[in-house]
Amino acid sequence: MSDLQFDYTNVLADVISPEHGLTEDQLAGFAERSGQALERVQARRTQDLRWMDLPYQTDVVDAIEAYARSVEGRFETVVVLGIGGSALGNTALYQSLNGPFPEGRSDRRKLVVLDNVDPELVGPFLERVDPRTTLFNVISKSGGTAETMSQFLLVRELLLKSGIDDWKDHLVITTDAEKGVLRQIVDREGFQSFVVPDGVGGRFSVLCPVGLVSSALIGIDIRQLLAGAAHMDQRCKGADFFQNPAQVHAAVQTLLHLEKHKPMAVTFSYSHRLKDFADWYAQLLAESIGKKHDIDGREVFAGPTPIRAVGVTDQHSQVQLYTEGPFDKWFTLLSVAEPTHRVTLPSAYEDLEGVAYLGGHSMSALFDAERDGTRVALTDAGRPNATLTLPKIDEHSIGQFIALFELSVALMGEHYRINAFDQPGVEAGKIAAYALMGRAGYEARRAEIEAAGAGRTPRFV
Amino acid sequence: MSDLQFDYTNVLADVISPEHGLTEDQLAGFAERSGQALERVQARRTQDLRWMDLPYQTDVVDAIEAYARSVEGRFETVVVLGIGGSALGNTALYQSLNGPFPEGRSDRRKLVVLDNVDPELVGPFLERVDPRTTLFNVISKSGGTAETMSQFLLVRELLLKSGIDDWKDHLVITTDAEKGVLRQIVDREGFQSFVVPDGVGGRFSVLCPVGLVSSALIGIDIRQLLAGAAHMDQRCKGADFFQNPAQVHAAVQTLLHLEKHKPMAVTFSYSHRLKDFADWYAQLLAESIGKKHDIDGREVFAGPTPIRAVGVTDQHSQVQLYTEGPFDKWFTLLSVAEPTHRVTLPSAYEDLEGVAYLGGHSMSALFDAERDGTRVALTDAGRPNATLTLPKIDEHSIGQFIALFELSVALMGEHYRINAFDQPGVEAGKIAAYALMGRAGYEARRAEIEAAGAGRTPRFV
Repeated sequence: MSDLQFDYTNVLADVISPEHGLTEDQLAGFAERSGQALERVQARRTQDLRWMDLPYQTDVVDAIEAYARSVEGRFETVVVLGIGGSALGNTALYQSLNGPFPEGRSDRRKLVVLDNVDPELVGPFLERVDPRTTLFNVISKSGGTAETMSQFLLVRELLLKSGIDDWKDHLVITTDAEKGVLRQIVDREGFQSFVVPDGVGGRFSVLCPVGLVSSALIGIDIRQLLAGAAHMDQRCKGADFFQNPAQVHAAVQTLLHLEKHKPMAVTFSYSHRLKDFADWYAQLLAESIGKKHDIDGREVFAGPTPIRAVGVTDQHSQVQLYTEGPFDKWFTLLSVAEPTHRVTLPSAYEDLEGVAYLGGHSMSALFDAERDGTRVALTDAGRPNATLTLPKIDEHSIGQFIALFELSVALMGEHYRINAFDQPGVEAGKIAAYALMGRAGYEARRAEIEAAGAGRTPRFV
Repeated sequence: MSDLQFDYTNVLADVISPEHGLTEDQLAGFAERSGQALERVQARRTQDLRWMDLPYQTDVVDAIEAYARSVEGRFETVVVLGIGGSALGNTALYQSLNGPFPEGRSDRRKLVVLDNVDPELVGPFLERVDPRTTLFNVISKSGGTAETMSQFLLVRELLLKSGIDDWKDHLVITTDAEKGVLRQIVDREGFQSFVVPDGVGGRFSVLCPVGLVSSALIGIDIRQLLAGAAHMDQRCKGADFFQNPAQVHAAVQTLLHLEKHKPMAVTFSYSHRLKDFADWYAQLLAESIGKKHDIDGREVFAGPTPIRAVGVTDQHSQVQLYTEGPFDKWFTLLSVAEPTHRVTLPSAYEDLEGVAYLGGHSMSALFDAERDGTRVALTDAGRPNATLTLPKIDEHSIGQFIALFELSVALMGEHYRINAFDQPGVEAGKIAAYALMGRAGYEARRAEIEAAGAGRTPRFV
């Protein structure tokens, strides 16, 4: 098996219940609408949805690999300065492909993603990082992200003060080809740089230099990653509805939410290494579908809420709610068919049944039994659940995974009738923050905020 | 300021909107019901809710500190083998009090919490851990948790094979005083052990040896932690409703959910160090209130869904949905008044306004402006939000925080009219997993599961 498999048996009405499950007729009846959505989305791949063609870029892969070779052996650690779409994909690729403990592997380097500006994180980081053995990868499409630019200023000063002769070689910048302050800085300083192409929004950018540069630097095979994505792209391009995993996934999400009243989509990762892809998908789903207006400008306040859980860990935290609480969720279990590590539980205390039954089993058998046990429990409790199985954790599978969810979310955008590719709601908070920091040009907003605050009686205890 | 402060200004109707906010009359009208709930809960503190008196234990603190002193200097790393309530509090205490990079601090040691049985996590861990410098802390109230017992078997074998003479000193066990396999093993082997007292369920156990042993071993001041919890306990014991943070918090949660139809409770941590307390609270809330039956045995399928977010990180991931999506959430921003680390942004590129405005500011100013900007954006979008401010991150504040949320959730149990202290829904998955692993006594369940599976036509793509 080398294809990702999406098993939706347990979302069906005859397994779950007529009230909470979908019928096959319901899905079949959605196929025409889904096919039209797919056509509309595919028609835009050479226009504004250029992220769809990222799996086929060859020039940029050559350039990235040449750059990675040119710095090989010079750095022990790569640090990403980026946030949101510039961070989540990098974290997910690193955690899944380099594993939880990369230190011991000679072919894989360590990645730190500094995706916050809490001084309690950045302060201790700056005290400890050794700039001589570190390469800093600054990522911002707009080139103006306050968090990333703040970190860049600090790291630049650290490098300048470190007395390293070739300090500029410790920086690589990924930003827009022409626009933005960061591109101006690149031109002025002569830093190594890569381009975020047009038509590639932050949350759809992991397969462009935003994710590929770091990946190549830490030993990930980016050609295989793109090959996996291309494979899924081909699989989803013109297939019939029931043969198309992106169409089926988007239909299940949309129908369970809008017809079966399940506003919460839980990604339950039965893989420690895949858990950060649940965070990556949480951004993709939330920012794409969470919209105040539909495409006709009507107020709709749309959007499912993504929730991430980790198996088996959250069996001891969230499964009580998942099986006994309100019928307001559906579940996608992430599963891996073939583990990389074999761990056998030793036999001991054979007279104590409460522990003896474990001896001789592989840890995989325990892990799989717990995953399947949770699936049985969810199903018996009438909670719709699907299982997405990766053949194993490698670059090709992860590439498939990324392409599947990106296309599915684009299709959901059509189904929910919203613009899946903007994020107008992020601006309000940014503008308020600029105003509160006293940035020039935001004085009127600051006065407004202060007046609103002054009109309220604070209530606290 | 040394008290935690819960600011609920922005959940009020005159700030948010009549449709989505609470009126002061509504809160005042809830005070009597809340007072009765508080009385009922307080009456049980010497009965079944013994966790309420944990802040006042002195003998056990003496014993833990004596033990920690006896092993001082012998171990570099403490590894917790535990899951759920045996793991989440330990992770949260470590991340908040020892900070994100404890390696550089001589007074604080490193903690690893191994809260999964994924072989992809445990395998690489076992390959890398140095048993000679590691102390393993095995925690299971029942003494039969499959995940923890599996890890224990592996670690025991690792120690036996390592040839360490005093291998038994590398283990410390926390379990029931009398019941369970783990206590039998302690008695047989003579391991150092501590007791999970009666009346202390897993999710309410962080202030008993479950959380205190690891904390003492890694340099946390457990007396101050308990002093903070005792301080909050006193503050909440008999205060009037509007002076009692636990009563106000529980009322706001209950009314926003049940009267204002907001089933999702987002804990938005504007502190990198507090983010794992959002996970700890997620278990406390989900397992306590997520219940199929009310106290009269009627089917109610109750329970808010906890969601965790991290500021500023999730501004670039979830805030689009939070401000523009459905009105189905309320928000608690966690905030810290006084940062430990001062980081000043250097001035550079003064002719480029897009970056120059940052120079000279402290990173705290940026972080605080972003938090306050998000609060303004949520409020302007009509989304109820409260802010819980810790004076600073230290043991006393964290102790207050824990005691506040534990009491609040106990009160919610009364308001939702469910039993907040059991977790019947966790059993179904466990039993299914035992059956699938072929454990003796579960053959009938296995046959049932297989028969159900055989009756279904798998659907996948």
